This record gives sequence, C-alpha cells and structure tokens, in this order.
Amino acid sequence: MRAYDVIRAKRDGEALAPETVREFVGAFVRGDVSDAEMAAFLMAVYFKGLSAAETAALTRAMVESGETLDLSGIAGPTVDKHSTGGVGDKTSLVVVPLAASAGARVAKLSGRALGHTGGTLDKLEAIPGLRVELEPRALVAQVNRVGCAIAGQSAKLVPADKRLYALRDRTATVDSVALIASSVMSKKIASGSRAIVLDVKTGSGAFMKTAAESRALAAAMVEIGRAAGRRTAAVLSSMEQPLGRTVGNAVEVEEAIRTLRGEGPDDLKELSLALGAQMLVLAGVAADAAGARARLESALASGDGARTLAAMVEAQGGDPEVVEHPERLPRAKVERPVASPADGFVTGIDAEAIGYAAIALGAGRSKAGDRIDPAAGIILERKTGHAVRRGEALVRLRAADEARTAEAGRRILDAYRIGPEAQGAPSLVLDVIA
Amino acid sequence: MRAYDVIRAKRDGEALAPETVREFVGAFVRGDVSDAEMAAFLMAVYFKGLSAAETAALTRAMVESGETLDLSGIAGPTVDKHSTGGVGDKTSLVVVPLAASAGARVAKLSGRALGHTGGTLDKLEAIPGLRVELEPRALVAQVNRVGCAIAGQSAKLVPADKRLYALRDRTATVDSVALIASSVMSKKIASGSRAIVLDVKTGSGAFMKTAAESRALAAAMVEIGRAAGRRTAAVLSSMEQPLGRTVGNAVEVEEAIRTLRGEGPDDLKELSLALGAQMLVLAGVAADAAGARARLESALASGDGARTLAAMVEAQGGDPEVVEHPERLPRAKVERPVASPADGFVTGIDAEAIGYAAIALGAGRSKAGDRIDPAAGIILERKTGHAVRRGEALVRLRAADEARTAEAGRRILDAYRIGPEAQGAPSLVLDVIA
Repeated sequence: MRAYDVIRAKRDGEALAPETVREFVGAFVRGDVSDAEMAAFLMAVYFKGLSAAETAALTRAMVESGETLDLSGIAGPTVDKHSTGGVGDKTSLVVVPLAASAGARVAKLSGRALGHTGGTLDKLEAIPGLRVELEPRALVAQVNRVGCAIAGQSAKLVPADKRLYALRDRTATVDSVALIASSVMSKKIASGSRAIVLDVKTGSGAFMKTAAESRALAAAMVEIGRAAGRRTAAVLSSMEQPLGRTVGNAVEVEEAIRTLRGEGPDDLKELSLALGAQMLVLAGVAADAAGARARLESALASGDGARTLAAMVEAQGGDPEVVEHPERLPRAKVERPVASPADGFVTGIDAEAIGYAAIALGAGRSKAGDRIDPAAGIILERKTGHAVRRGEALVRLRAADEARTAEAGRRILDAYRIGPEAQGAPSLVLDVIA
Repeated sequence: MRAYDVIRAKRDGEALAPETVREFVGAFVRGDVSDAEMAAFLMAVYFKGLSAAETAALTRAMVESGETLDLSGIAGPTVDKHSTGGVGDKTSLVVVPLAASAGARVAKLSGRALGHTGGTLDKLEAIPGLRVELEPRALVAQVNRVGCAIAGQSAKLVPADKRLYALRDRTATVDSVALIASSVMSKKIASGSRAIVLDVKTGSGAFMKTAAESRALAAAMVEIGRAAGRRTAAVLSSMEQPLGRTVGNAVEVEEAIRTLRGEGPDDLKELSLALGAQMLVLAGVAADAAGARARLESALASGDGARTLAAMVEAQGGDPEVVEHPERLPRAKVERPVASPADGFVTGIDAEAIGYAAIALGAGRSKAGDRIDPAAGIILERKTGHAVRRGEALVRLRAADEARTAEAGRRILDAYRIGPEAQGAPSLVLDVIA
C-alpha cells in the first residue's frame, strides 16, 4: 500500500479494499502516513464519501489502534447508549439506571461538555463526591453489583480517533457522515457492549441540522455496528428546542431524578422510554418495544429506576441521598429571571443559542479544559407552544454572579421567538432505525 | 485569516478574496499554515477549482515567496518561452537563438529531464564546456551582447512552488489545471520577461492527454500572465509522437543545429516558426504573425539563427565549433538498429514509451539527481505515416553498452504500432490561444 495510491483512488471515487483502508489507518497511527497525506485523504472522503464496507474497515482499524474494554466478566446482556449531543439532554441519567433496573447491564463511557452541548460526566460530577474515573475491573464489578455504571473514557481506547479528529477539526473535514459515524462507533465498539442504542439528534441544537443528514448518519452508524457484530438501533429525535426544562449540570441531575420519580417533563420521559425500549429489546430482556416499554413504566412507578440511580451514585463514591433530597446538590448564589419582552406564544427556542447562554453562565465549555460551575444553569419556564405575558419569566438563570446572568440573559432573549399565534411543540421521537 | 476558514470556504465552493489567498500562501511559506492544512486545501481545490482571480492571487503569492529576476538592464524587448514538456522537444534550442537573431531578447530559465520528458539544460550540457549556471548580472550582460541565454533556475526563485509541488506530489493533488498553471506561471513571471509564449503539449507524450485539458491549461496560463501584466500567448501543439527525429541530448542538439541550418525535419521547423512568430509579435518586433514568420524564415536562410546559437554557446563557455561541426558532440560507443517486426506502415508511436526507452539508454532520469549520458539517445528512422519493411530499422539506439540498447529495444517495439494501411501524421500546431 502506497499512501499516494490510496489518496488518488479515493479522489477518483474508486472502491478501496477493506484491507487497504486498514493498512492506511495503521500506517497513520505508526507515523508512516503523514498528517498531510491523511488530510488530503480526509478531504477526498468529504467529497466522495465512504462505502459501507470502507466505513466498517475504517472503524475496525480505529478500534484496533488501541485497547478495547473487556466486558466479558459482566453477567447478563450488556447494552450501551450514545447520544450525538444536544442541549438539556440528560437522558442518560434517566435511561441508564432505568434500563438496568429492568434487567439490562449498562457499562456506559461518556464524554464532557464542549461548545453548545453538555456532557454526562460533568453533570454527574455535580453530585458531591462522585467519581467518573473507573478502572475496567471496578467498572465490571460495579455493573455486576448495581446493574450500571457511567464512567470516563480511557485515553487508551481508540487513540486513532483522537488524532484523526484533531486533524479533521483543523482541516474542515469534520462534516462527513462516514467520518462522524466511524468516530462515534469506533468508541462504542471498543467499549465492549454487545448491543448499542444511538440517540441521533436533529435540528437547530444538534450537530446535524436536517432530518435527512441525521437519518443518513443514523443509518451509517447502525450499519457499522452490525458489521462489527453488535446489535444496533438508532432513535431519531428532535433537538429543535432544549430537552426538558433544565440546561446545566446540577439542574439537569435534579430533573433526571425527578423524572425517575415520575415527576419529570413529558418530553424527557418520552425519549427515555423510547431509548430504553430499544435497549431492552436489543439486550434480549424484552421481546418487543411494547413489552419493553411496559417494563420501563413499571420500573418508574415502583421507584426501581430511582433506587438503581442511587445505588450507582453510591458505588461511584457520590452522595446517594441526592436522589431523595435533590436540594443537597450545589446551589448557585444568584438566580435571576429573564422576562418576556412581549405578550404571545413561544414559537421556537434556538437550542444552540441556549447552549451558548449556558456557557456564559459557567455551565459549559468554550474549549476543552475550561472549568465548569456545577451549580450554574438555566430553568426553562416556557417552552415552544406555551403562552406568555410581557414581564413573565421565560427562564430563570443560575450563576455565581450577576455579570454572568446579564450576558446569558441577552442570549436567552435572542434564542426565544415570541409570536401572536399558538404553535404546537415539534414532535420529539421522529423515527427508529433498526 | 484563519486557515480553517480558507479551507472550509474552498471546500464549499465560495469565492476567496485575492488578499485571503495571498495571506494563506504567505502563512504556509512562513510555517504558520501546516502541510496538513495546505494538503486539505489543495484537495478541495482539486474538486472545486480556482477562479481566475484566485489563480492570479495564488500565482502572485508564489512569486512573492522568493526573489525575482530583474531584467530591466536588458536593452530591447524581453520574451520568454516555455514548454509543458514532451519527448524529443528541442524547440527551445532552435527558437531561442532564432527569435533573438530576429530582434527579440530572450533570457530563458530552463529545467532538467525528469520521467519521460527531456530537459533543455541537460541537452545544452551535451555541448563540451557549456555552463548553465549564470548569475543574474552575467545573464543580463550576455543577452545584451548576443541576444539570448538559457540558464538554470536559482532556488531563490519561487521557493513556495518547490514546497507546494512536493506536497502535491505526495497527496495526489498534482492534476489540477489551476495548480499546474500557477506553478508554471509563477516561475515565468519571477523570471522577469515582459512577454511569455507557452508551448502547451497535448497527447500521449504530454502531461495533458486530451486537447480539452490542454486548452483549459493554456487558457488558464494566458489569463494568469495577463493578470500579472505580461503579454502572454499559448500555442497548442500535438505530442502524439516524438517531435523531430531524435530523442536524447547530443542527438537533439545536433538536430536543432541542423534545423537552424535549414536541414531539420519539417515538424520541428514548423513548431519553431509557430512559437517564434508569437514571440516576435508579443515582443513588438513584428506587427503580425505573417510578418514575424517571414523574418524568422529569413534568419534561417541567412544562417543568422545558427550564428546566434554559436554566440550563445561560446558566451556560456561551450565549444561554438559544434554548430559548424556537430560531430564534435559526444558520441556513444554502441549504436544498434531496432528492426521492424513486420511490413506495413507506422500508424502511431507512443511518445511516452519512447521517453522511457530513452531513460533505459541513460539519456533521461527516473528520479531527480540521476546521472545522464549525453551521448545516449534515439534516432527515429520511421515516424507515423511512413512505410516500413520487415527487418528495416524503425530507430537506431545509441548508448554506452548493449545491455542498455537491448532493454530500450524492447520498449521501442512496444511503442511502435505497425499496420497495413497508410495513415497521415497527426497535425502538429493545433491552435494559438492569445
């Protein structure tokens, strides 16, 4: 394999043999293919795409670049869940313990907040004492004991993805369905679960802005999962406005707890049930989505889901009392409402803009490494379709000081659209691709 | 200017401001834009092209990356000539002294043989004693004294082109009309002549295999020259078979001398007159192509062209007697004919294959730095359209030993197509783009 021939073939739209893709990525990891050669290849992929076979080979090569997590010590059917990222998306905090309480085994590796999207690890760390660094053996033991765990990803998993992503980020080659799909799936496959359920977001607050792009991404990821021998399904869900009523860290944990206790907002509950049902079906715990849903509803009603979350929090060193007493979560010094500038109805909330308002409050990160204020966040008092009068609160902002709430308040006013006509909220669960 | 934004804009087919292109190339030369970023940009250019304004800006930025040759000390109208490269193309050796003898001032910087194409510097160096390294001041003085000079290009001219070309060569981004055009024209513009005549080859022995590609390249180069304030024209000429009757170094010098003495083959004479006419018109020495042609014919008939070549050779330290006595050029030890395997007519000669046969003889270079045998070469006894009988010589091969002629002989037989029907030679001068 000569790097030149691989680049030229992709440039000319020729099919690459899976073995060639694998050698090319392997040579890149070893340093025998330069960043410049890989950058040219990535741009050619941007224009010419990758076939399903090429994408599967790329994913496999990335998985092979590092260690893989051995979950064979877990007794029971392992299933993973991944979201392509949104605003106010605390679904993992609900569905991971809920699916575990219904019989699935969930060893989930999560990420951190970056840009307008939040990160599950940052949310969890809002719980006093909770640790997200778990060694593989501890992770397996915890899942066997309490049914689930949510931990950070070791740098030893898929090092090729980290290097490739950094290169794509500099060379304007991030926006490729095949490359996004293989990046996500390489990490999920290396994480070891036998089944994978994907929440593919679409809309203003999602990475993919249109349903067509999101659907293509979902299909590509499901195909990769299958090629790697994993049972895989994707739920296509709307991210036209933030999910639930909170955006931040402690505020989202509290909302997730309330949802597990049956007091959560409808949209978060609905998405959690849709994703959880797929998890139970792929895990083989339920025969079909209807049966799976019934089990999940029962775990919500009985409080089993909430108890499993408490057990997971305790196992990871956190204060399990937060599940009964969410007021033990960090509280912000300042809370300020943002008043509606007009009478009318909320006709839309730009989710991405809300994500940037959360960064302004200190609840997110502009760049990797920024410190996060766990108590900062946004409570949405009005969502799309709601009536509002001038002067009433659209949201309440929480932060460490008023300078932050003032800047975030301006962004909130830009994000909300108020009109004279009532308008229904967008559908949440758009499709299931399995 | 952020490199990312430039790459993304080109990827998305947006127009780049000339100043942005200039900054981007400048940053690359300084090392502030990485090879990886440039490689991604080049691949985006491969797919999206460059507008005339962008190409002109790129060319200008490349010229600005190094020194430029100051020809203002030359009394008289300077004109340069460049060929995109062919097999048996000794036209510069004819037309440079011929145009000079008719009143143009020609300070030409030439290149060396690489791959299947020959190089003017290597050909000239077959003349005993001749030097091609001329300092700028010596170059100007020589042109003022004898009318012309052919020298090597200093590494200080257009260093960005050298780096960009090396990157393109590794990343499969050589085949872009805009990038080829700006690479050639940046060197011509930096070389200082006020007028530029381009010989754009097309066909099996040319870099561009189709007339449409060659025409696009010619148009792009003419446009760049004009944007840089140079009078520019291009002659589109066929490279379906080698030009003239010789391929090599000493053999080509001898053929050029014979052409200047009125004893050359028709095709070489025809192309020299076509290019020379454009040179005289652009230099302002003749009012139109017909008048220019008449002056060139007269310089051929009077022997002025041959005398100017002798003067140039002498000025550059070479033996001027070779013009009267070409037998003073280096002679190969071995000369072997390659016999036709059949009766019939030559229906085609693959020029590129002939070029590789010349490399096998030692007359060319597989890679930069290979040593060249000036005496090695090919004398074509039959060209397209000629009748031949089985056993008669198609070519005669000259080399240092018989191993070389044996290998080259096999390549010659592959290059010649012999058929039962007589077929006319392809047209040589296809168009003039001005």
